[in-house]
Amino acid sequence: MGFKEWIIPQEKHFFCLLDQQANVVLEGAEALLDMVKDYNDIAMKRDRMKDIEHKGDDLVHTIAEALNKTFVTPIDHDDMSKLASRLDDILDYMESAAHRMWAYEIKTIPPEMVKLAEVVVSSVRETTHAVKDLKNFKRRNEILQHCIEINRLENVGDDITHTAIANLFKTKDVLEIIKLKEIYEHLEMATDKCEDAADVIKDIFIKNS
Amino acid sequence: MGFKEWIIPQEKHFFCLLDQQANVVLEGAEALLDMVKDYNDIAMKRDRMKDIEHKGDDLVHTIAEALNKTFVTPIDHDDMSKLASRLDDILDYMESAAHRMWAYEIKTIPPEMVKLAEVVVSSVRETTHAVKDLKNFKRRNEILQHCIEINRLENVGDDITHTAIANLFKTKDVLEIIKLKEIYEHLEMATDKCEDAADVIKDIFIKNS
Amino acid sequence: MGFKEWIIPQEKHFFCLLDQQANVVLEGAEALLDMVKDYNDIAMKRDRMKDIEHKGDDLVHTIAEALNKTFVTPIDHDDMSKLASRLDDILDYMESAAHRMWAYEIKTIPPEMVKLAEVVVSSVRETTHAVKDLKNFKRRNEILQHCIEINRLENVGDDITHTAIANLFKTKDVLEIIKLKEIYEHLEMATDKCEDAADVIKDIFIKNS
Repeated sequence: MGFKEWIIPQEKHFFCLLDQQANVVLEGAEALLDMVKDYNDIAMKRDRMKDIEHKGDDLVHTIAEALNKTFVTPIDHDDMSKLASRLDDILDYMESAAHRMWAYEIKTIPPEMVKLAEVVVSSVRETTHAVKDLKNFKRRNEILQHCIEINRLENVGDDITHTAIANLFKTKDVLEIIKLKEIYEHLEMATDKCEDAADVIKDIFIKNS
Repeated sequence: MGFKEWIIPQEKHFFCLLDQQANVVLEGAEALLDMVKDYNDIAMKRDRMKDIEHKGDDLVHTIAEALNKTFVTPIDHDDMSKLASRLDDILDYMESAAHRMWAYEIKTIPPEMVKLAEVVVSSVRETTHAVKDLKNFKRRNEILQHCIEINRLENVGDDITHTAIANLFKTKDVLEIIKLKEIYEHLEMATDKCEDAADVIKDIFIKNS
Repeated sequence: MGFKEWIIPQEKHFFCLLDQQANVVLEGAEALLDMVKDYNDIAMKRDRMKDIEHKGDDLVHTIAEALNKTFVTPIDHDDMSKLASRLDDILDYMESAAHRMWAYEIKTIPPEMVKLAEVVVSSVRETTHAVKDLKNFKRRNEILQHCIEINRLENVGDDITHTAIANLFKTKDVLEIIKLKEIYEHLEMATDKCEDAADVIKDIFIKNS
């Protein structure tokens, strides 16, 4: 039986909610990139990230309640709930990175951090597309292509982070090291969580195709 | 069908065990608050936390074994096991915070840390009540009230932690910064885990009402 | 019904894959111990760890795909998948510890770190045996013995780590403290993940005996 045949209205509703959530995560990624690229009005931009994160939280709760109230759907509830939770993790790490830029009074964003934020945005964009393709079923190749790209970007993000932190240690400015290291790690965790989301998406796709 | 009608003896047994576990977590929270408020005999108080943590561990194992041996109960085993695991996480973070106060030879507890510990205790108290109400079924409003309060306290804990760490960085005493920052983060994780426990409690309640 | 009677070819296939994965994790543990004991050619030894980690990743994906394509087996898919995931975590933490020795340009490995790596290897060895015994069913006592030993080793690892970090803070060399502390913590997480794997093994055994 194909993916299309058994899809039912209830499922469509969940996919719409996941779509909305993925869009909010992408909105957060773009706000983050704007923040590091045009590093002004930091308090305002950090508040914007916080607002986007709250919007994401509300959607997670809506999805959780909808899942808890629905008893039989072909797609595994746990997978849906796991996917919503991974998407939320991505947003949380981006928000906590932005928050630390403001709270730790970071004066300038190092170029490697801008590069890492660009990787985060690319990875979130792929993740958003993969979530959308999950709804539009039958796009097997497209979904797998997004997942492969997310994996590749996670490795790129890893390498940028490792090099940046190794270089950071050479500066000997301990307070800056502690602060920037933590921000790099939160950004890198965002790409890790994209990979976790991609794993759930692949699982859902394989189980249902 | 209401929550009450289908409850069965086996379920009651699990709820009793979860109740006991919640009480041990609360005992840990109170021991932690006593430690930071009356910061003397640290080695002894740290050992007391360790003992309470071991008591909690034993209960988690008892619950896991009981769940593994029981095959059919209306309430989802995974939810029970997740709740036990989240309650255990709360205790672990409180214990690891207390351990670090002793191991890092912290001389005095900053007032913000006492405030944060008070938030932890309040949040654990709400969590304990929510676990108890889960057993006493039909207390829908009370359970939701506890969960809302736990969410509120998590935000309060977050704000205290963020402000405290931002201020900490201004002291320039790097070793103290590293040590105290880690303790703040472990205490804050305890309130995060209360929120995770509250999410599981809400899930169990919604699925079964 | 005993454990032996219902085992079916499909299950055997999963156990073989888990076995292979456990062997790769053990290979990683031995490479790590060699690295810290004979601390030369660090870049080469770090690359070797990376290769072993990739081999482990490939097995996790093979297991995940095999599980997703198989619909009915007596043993819970989630447990199999959880076990594969915990084994992978062990390898990840060993690899990230090895990576940091190289990236942070650690000049010499402190004796306590060698001791901790020895505990990691012992714990991984017990975990590998427990995974093998799971396949050879009916070895109830052996499995429980391994799990008890893994728990004991986790406590030993904890104590070594706590003492080492407390002593580290006394050196006042902040950059070294930050670097070595992180490596100790990653090694300690490897023993934690052995314990998590042991918990899953115990669960699988209890549910199916």
